[in-house]
Amino acid sequence: MIINIELQNNSYPIYIEKDGIKNLHKYFNLLEHKVLIVSDSNIPFGYIKTIQDQCTNSYYFIIKAGEESKSIDNYLTLQKILLEKEFSRKDIIIGLGGGVVGDLTAFVASTFKRGIPFINIPTSSLAMIDSSIGGKTAINYLGIKNCIGTFYQPKLVIIDFNLLKSLPIRHLNNGLIEALKAGYIYDSSIIDLFKDDPYKNLEEIIIRSIKVKKHYVEIDEKELNERKILNYGHTFGHALESYFHFSDSLYHGEAVAIGMLLISDEKEELLQILKKLNIHLNDTYDYDKIIELIKNDKKVDKEYVDLILRKNKVGVICPTKIDRLKEMLIGGEQYVRCLRK
Amino acid sequence: MIINIELQNNSYPIYIEKDGIKNLHKYFNLLEHKVLIVSDSNIPFGYIKTIQDQCTNSYYFIIKAGEESKSIDNYLTLQKILLEKEFSRKDIIIGLGGGVVGDLTAFVASTFKRGIPFINIPTSSLAMIDSSIGGKTAINYLGIKNCIGTFYQPKLVIIDFNLLKSLPIRHLNNGLIEALKAGYIYDSSIIDLFKDDPYKNLEEIIIRSIKVKKHYVEIDEKELNERKILNYGHTFGHALESYFHFSDSLYHGEAVAIGMLLISDEKEELLQILKKLNIHLNDTYDYDKIIELIKNDKKVDKEYVDLILRKNKVGVICPTKIDRLKEMLIGGEQYVRCLRK
Repeated sequence: MIINIELQNNSYPIYIEKDGIKNLHKYFNLLEHKVLIVSDSNIPFGYIKTIQDQCTNSYYFIIKAGEESKSIDNYLTLQKILLEKEFSRKDIIIGLGGGVVGDLTAFVASTFKRGIPFINIPTSSLAMIDSSIGGKTAINYLGIKNCIGTFYQPKLVIIDFNLLKSLPIRHLNNGLIEALKAGYIYDSSIIDLFKDDPYKNLEEIIIRSIKVKKHYVEIDEKELNERKILNYGHTFGHALESYFHFSDSLYHGEAVAIGMLLISDEKEELLQILKKLNIHLNDTYDYDKIIELIKNDKKVDKEYVDLILRKNKVGVICPTKIDRLKEMLIGGEQYVRCLRK
Repeated sequence: MIINIELQNNSYPIYIEKDGIKNLHKYFNLLEHKVLIVSDSNIPFGYIKTIQDQCTNSYYFIIKAGEESKSIDNYLTLQKILLEKEFSRKDIIIGLGGGVVGDLTAFVASTFKRGIPFINIPTSSLAMIDSSIGGKTAINYLGIKNCIGTFYQPKLVIIDFNLLKSLPIRHLNNGLIEALKAGYIYDSSIIDLFKDDPYKNLEEIIIRSIKVKKHYVEIDEKELNERKILNYGHTFGHALESYFHFSDSLYHGEAVAIGMLLISDEKEELLQILKKLNIHLNDTYDYDKIIELIKNDKKVDKEYVDLILRKNKVGVICPTKIDRLKEMLIGGEQYVRCLRK
């Protein structure tokens, strides 16, 4: 199956198929170009080998799994490799991994000799559903997430469901929250698939949520307006991630899950799905500090937050008074409590 | 006078006027945004002050004049300033200086929070004629020029001829070589202005050469094809710059001047203009090393170089055998000798 992302410039296909990485050579000429594969320490080495077997002149670089690898140091190391191996603007960089690998590798590709071809092969549900599509590239600097980056579209994306087999269940569920979000903001049939059985319906859930992402990226590539709706649940979510210092105690999707619960008008329904996905939060948080974190966020004006809310089954941007946020934190407490073990 | 650069996305105006920097506020809302002005140690401080007087919340950062300032260190320092001063994607970065300031500052702007508005105010003839137009951004890394960068268009460019008054004559002439090149590849009326009097005709020469650059940038923004014609004289020019280690003994334009002389079919005419512009080269160079440098350049295939030559008064891309280059070096020697004092 192919889903095309249609943009003014730089449209590209997403190939969705089992064993897709074995077919990479069908979609891009790997034989006549140098190939650098970037992956992380959690990815089975066999995946890298599968790609290398299709190349004549390939290299790989493995970063340490985890957010701290989206660093200037790794960025410069990769630039150095490309220079030393004398990559030209016609050669290829492949990101094989989750969001960290994809964001870093795409940023390297976008800035090496003003841009060389980039192929994204996401291996996590989160990357398949969210970060591999839409052209956002980024690294972190001075402790600030994604503050350096570009918009840069890949030449193609391969979604190979087989790669999910090696993914720990907590990671799988973490990514599925972004699919659930896609259900709440645009395609409520996705919610039904979750209510039925998220694991049985896994592939269909991923495909439908990619189509939701396609919709918003195509109408607003640079996130000037409508694309912001994809941030449903992320206002509280980001603040919670920041509150817990982006630690393993709360993954991105888990934070967004709680963020959605706090703003949802269908809290009971959502709670049941989150329980099914085994989302939980044992720690408590301080309301005022969460609000302080939201205020300090770049997207916030002095008194109002552009909150994404659900109206008539779709996400809408609602400028919301900061005071209202505290009410949401208090009103949602009894539901969040149900996620504590 | 306004020249618009018309691109698929991100078209922008070039305002050409004396005292243009005093009018910057008319072209961009400087009052409601934070402004960072980046300049270099050779630029009169009064220019910065003129811009700051039009802003409510401005900062400046002065880099050391010279190519070595296009560094990762300066890049990261600027990113840090933007983060510390809490710049948002709506705020502005202004590059006020020559090509080094422009390339570095534009690269920072293109990658801070995935792109913030950038205004280019070139202060050298070289930057006015060439580097400020076309969206190439870059820094150097590991001794390799422009190996990290992006394509990123400014919001606007201001060409203020008054700024040239503070430019040393050797720098002025250095930049004018790119205008002369524009004459040879596209608009031969520019050559006539040089033959008449380059200084009397300075403004007209700059305006006409900007129009030549506009032509090539508009038809081939990312330099995949026709835009390469702007590299007339640059194949030998780059090799010569590299041979002399990008030192002050030979500026970029001067190297291109010799590069043009070596490939020109009108060597006598060109020589007279170069003498008028006081272009000279006292050092000698080794033919074989020059050819070795060209071979190692990224644009070169194994046996052929994409040389830009002049046919019927316009530049054309000519795949040329490496052997032919040595003949050009030998054939041009008597003319290059005339530039030695």
